Amino acid sequence: MAYTLAEIATRFGGRVLGDAETRISQIATLEKAQSGQISFLTNSKYRAQLANTRAGAVILGEADAEATDLPRIISQNPYAYFAKVSALLNPFPETLSGVHSSAVVGPGAQIDPTASIAATAVIGAGAVIGADTVIGAGCCIGDNVVIGRHVRLYPRVVIYHDCVIGDNLIAHSGVVIGSDGFGIAMDEGRWIKIPQIGRVVIGNDVEIGANTTIDRGALDDTVIEDGVKLDNQIQIAHNVRIGAHTAIAGCVGIAGSTTIGKYCQIGGSAGILGHLKIADGVVIASFTLIGKSIREAGSYAAIYPFARTEDWRKNAVHLRHLDEMAKRLKILEQQLLKQESLKGNTDE
Amino acid sequence: MAYTLAEIATRFGGRVLGDAETRISQIATLEKAQSGQISFLTNSKYRAQLANTRAGAVILGEADAEATDLPRIISQNPYAYFAKVSALLNPFPETLSGVHSSAVVGPGAQIDPTASIAATAVIGAGAVIGADTVIGAGCCIGDNVVIGRHVRLYPRVVIYHDCVIGDNLIAHSGVVIGSDGFGIAMDEGRWIKIPQIGRVVIGNDVEIGANTTIDRGALDDTVIEDGVKLDNQIQIAHNVRIGAHTAIAGCVGIAGSTTIGKYCQIGGSAGILGHLKIADGVVIASFTLIGKSIREAGSYAAIYPFARTEDWRKNAVHLRHLDEMAKRLKILEQQLLKQESLKGNTDE
Amino acid sequence: MAYTLAEIATRFGGRVLGDAETRISQIATLEKAQSGQISFLTNSKYRAQLANTRAGAVILGEADAEATDLPRIISQNPYAYFAKVSALLNPFPETLSGVHSSAVVGPGAQIDPTASIAATAVIGAGAVIGADTVIGAGCCIGDNVVIGRHVRLYPRVVIYHDCVIGDNLIAHSGVVIGSDGFGIAMDEGRWIKIPQIGRVVIGNDVEIGANTTIDRGALDDTVIEDGVKLDNQIQIAHNVRIGAHTAIAGCVGIAGSTTIGKYCQIGGSAGILGHLKIADGVVIASFTLIGKSIREAGSYAAIYPFARTEDWRKNAVHLRHLDEMAKRLKILEQQLLKQESLKGNTDE
Repeated sequence: MAYTLAEIATRFGGRVLGDAETRISQIATLEKAQSGQISFLTNSKYRAQLANTRAGAVILGEADAEATDLPRIISQNPYAYFAKVSALLNPFPETLSGVHSSAVVGPGAQIDPTASIAATAVIGAGAVIGADTVIGAGCCIGDNVVIGRHVRLYPRVVIYHDCVIGDNLIAHSGVVIGSDGFGIAMDEGRWIKIPQIGRVVIGNDVEIGANTTIDRGALDDTVIEDGVKLDNQIQIAHNVRIGAHTAIAGCVGIAGSTTIGKYCQIGGSAGILGHLKIADGVVIASFTLIGKSIREAGSYAAIYPFARTEDWRKNAVHLRHLDEMAKRLKILEQQLLKQESLKGNTDE
Repeated sequence: MAYTLAEIATRFGGRVLGDAETRISQIATLEKAQSGQISFLTNSKYRAQLANTRAGAVILGEADAEATDLPRIISQNPYAYFAKVSALLNPFPETLSGVHSSAVVGPGAQIDPTASIAATAVIGAGAVIGADTVIGAGCCIGDNVVIGRHVRLYPRVVIYHDCVIGDNLIAHSGVVIGSDGFGIAMDEGRWIKIPQIGRVVIGNDVEIGANTTIDRGALDDTVIEDGVKLDNQIQIAHNVRIGAHTAIAGCVGIAGSTTIGKYCQIGGSAGILGHLKIADGVVIASFTLIGKSIREAGSYAAIYPFARTEDWRKNAVHLRHLDEMAKRLKILEQQLLKQESLKGNTDE
Repeated sequence: MAYTLAEIATRFGGRVLGDAETRISQIATLEKAQSGQISFLTNSKYRAQLANTRAGAVILGEADAEATDLPRIISQNPYAYFAKVSALLNPFPETLSGVHSSAVVGPGAQIDPTASIAATAVIGAGAVIGADTVIGAGCCIGDNVVIGRHVRLYPRVVIYHDCVIGDNLIAHSGVVIGSDGFGIAMDEGRWIKIPQIGRVVIGNDVEIGANTTIDRGALDDTVIEDGVKLDNQIQIAHNVRIGAHTAIAGCVGIAGSTTIGKYCQIGGSAGILGHLKIADGVVIASFTLIGKSIREAGSYAAIYPFARTEDWRKNAVHLRHLDEMAKRLKILEQQLLKQESLKGNTDE
């Protein structure tokens, strides 16, 4: 597959400078690109790399339009443009439709004839699999699960019974959707289990990274809205709601019944306690625990700065005495104030 | 399935007020419940919600017994009561006993005739599967594993060879039990592997959340005692022992050879270093690293409080200078003390 | 299998004291060892335990050579020696070579006749599986994956298409290698996916713990060099490079495009932000987030020390006022300096 810059600009917009008939067949970094490949610059700071690239063409922002003589496409958002060109050049591999002979399909399951069910996948009774959907090897789809169109499940995804999945979901290997939430009640010295009878409901255009887990609701549903992007190894507890177009990096944990707004961005290994509300447009730093609701968009953090271990130790020991330090500081201030005031008196 | 309040109270105790013949078939939140459904109030703080509920009946604590006219059951522990009623109304779905034709069973495995082995499960040589146990689709049970009665493994659980599982375990998808602990020794510039020849031994009435991993012991066993409840994505290292009825929230990591007492509660994403002892009844906050043994029951924490990023940055920079601050504070105190003492002298 | 101390010393070196014909068949802790078993002491601090052991022999360092009369092997590195003896006594169980009848092998796959493909494993088209390699039950190997010799994949490992695996890899259950990196670009209010067209390339002698995930590169490859040891539930993002013989404990997250040096050691639940460079020989404490590149070997930490919750709360509140405290301290210093200077003047 190869396209000219002119063909690409016809699809995705942007302005072509230099030879519009330049053909490209792959995308690569400035450093590694060869002729026949297109590269991109998303930050003028790295403009120097343009000088040495052997790329056949580049995607640039307006500010860098004249920073090279290479054939180029100028876009207002070169990073998104790169994503689109890469998707054009690297489509999902074709998958044969139909059910592999080693797959096991339960009674009453409705599988669209254009869908593909790979080897050793297990589809539960009454499940519905939409058009052009690909269920990877070893996936287990529970009874009565409903999956939309153009969904792609990589090998070994599990979806528990009754969950509902929109269109275009991409779920990577090891993802578990609809496992029981952590619901227990103490009764005379023993934990008893609270049945988890809600579902997980996932909107359209969601992606879920490898080994991420999303628990079903205790009574009502856990909800992932349209366009949410989840990285690997995230844990989403029961009855969480994640607003549309929110992106969450790896290893984040979100406790039960918390509602996260739209267009939030949550950094890696961050956490959010349960029963909180996070407003739209909140950005949370990596390694930050959010312990109270956040009502205003903006950026929030709580990262302990690292240091050489000996320096860290010397300083960290005082964290257990901050209150005492604060009190001693106050006493000093009062003493000095008294002195000043006495001196004031004697000065008079 | 539907039960009258009278039937429920006969099973689980409690006092019925209002029409004891009210029939209920499902449980729901106060907000969503319909007639024919029972709801519950576990905290008098939310008593106002009682006024608007359309539930057919409610479960209440003694303090709220007269807070509504609805048919109701009064219990000393309404949350546990709710759990029991929910379990009554939502039993595990029936599973056909027997071994699915696509499952693979090794030589010498003993599978109780009442057990159920789902599609594509693999049972190792010499494994023992107890009565009424359900092995989900795609599970892999290693050679010589012994599994008790009434165990439920959801799809894609792996149990390595020789591990021992008690009765009533519930293990969710992606759980790995008995993988090798992280045992390595440096030898002339290379790590060499220490064989992990212990087992994982799990008591009765344990639940393990999705994608949680429990490593086998290096020499002795890793032990999970009766009634332990583990949430999703927890990592339990080799030779850890977790005391009975301890509950651990998601994403916690426990390092090797640590012993945790009974009835502990560990918050999400917390960690415990290796070779420590944690007493019975210890509560550990989310995001807290425990780096020393804890000898007394009680509540422990180490959470860095979050703030707007600009405020966090302004304050966090001083963490690298706390020792210097402490010294400067001390110098000021000494200077003032000297002044006071000099003044004392001159005052004489 | 049993060996005399003399036979062991012939293989692994070291000096035998006492009866060199003592036969041992297993390794165990000092506390649990029986006659016929060998134990070891790696730290003179625990020398007292030697007195009570019922072990048939022990492995000791030079400093403890005379601390017991038991038959013993003296080694300069008793921990590594123990590892070697344990590996001798506990070899991997024999696996039958060949492809299980329930496994599914794609067209053009090349499987060495000495390799073993277990039940329900799925091997993609064009994949290459080397000599003596064992692919566990339920593993899914993508198209065109190349796997070396003596590799051992435990059940349910997934390797995505085109990845390259060296010799002697051990990967535990739930490992996912080659899933898409978290590459998204915002375009007019929607995230669009950046195709992840790099691979994961893994060197020789690597071990990967249960449920660890390693994402494929966005354009170039993600690289794990020779001898790297990864514990469970680690997340390695796209285009990360991990230097040879680096060891990483459980639950660590490493963000995209970060390069980690050789012989590093990273503690549990630590994190490293993206696009950083970590020098060779860096040791990072548990729970520490590294937010800047580290250019020098050494030990780094950022752990908030835990305390009783009431003490923690009393102290932590001041973290939001550290900057104010620092300013107040400075004002006090200036006031005192002014006083001293005034006094100096009046003293003259």
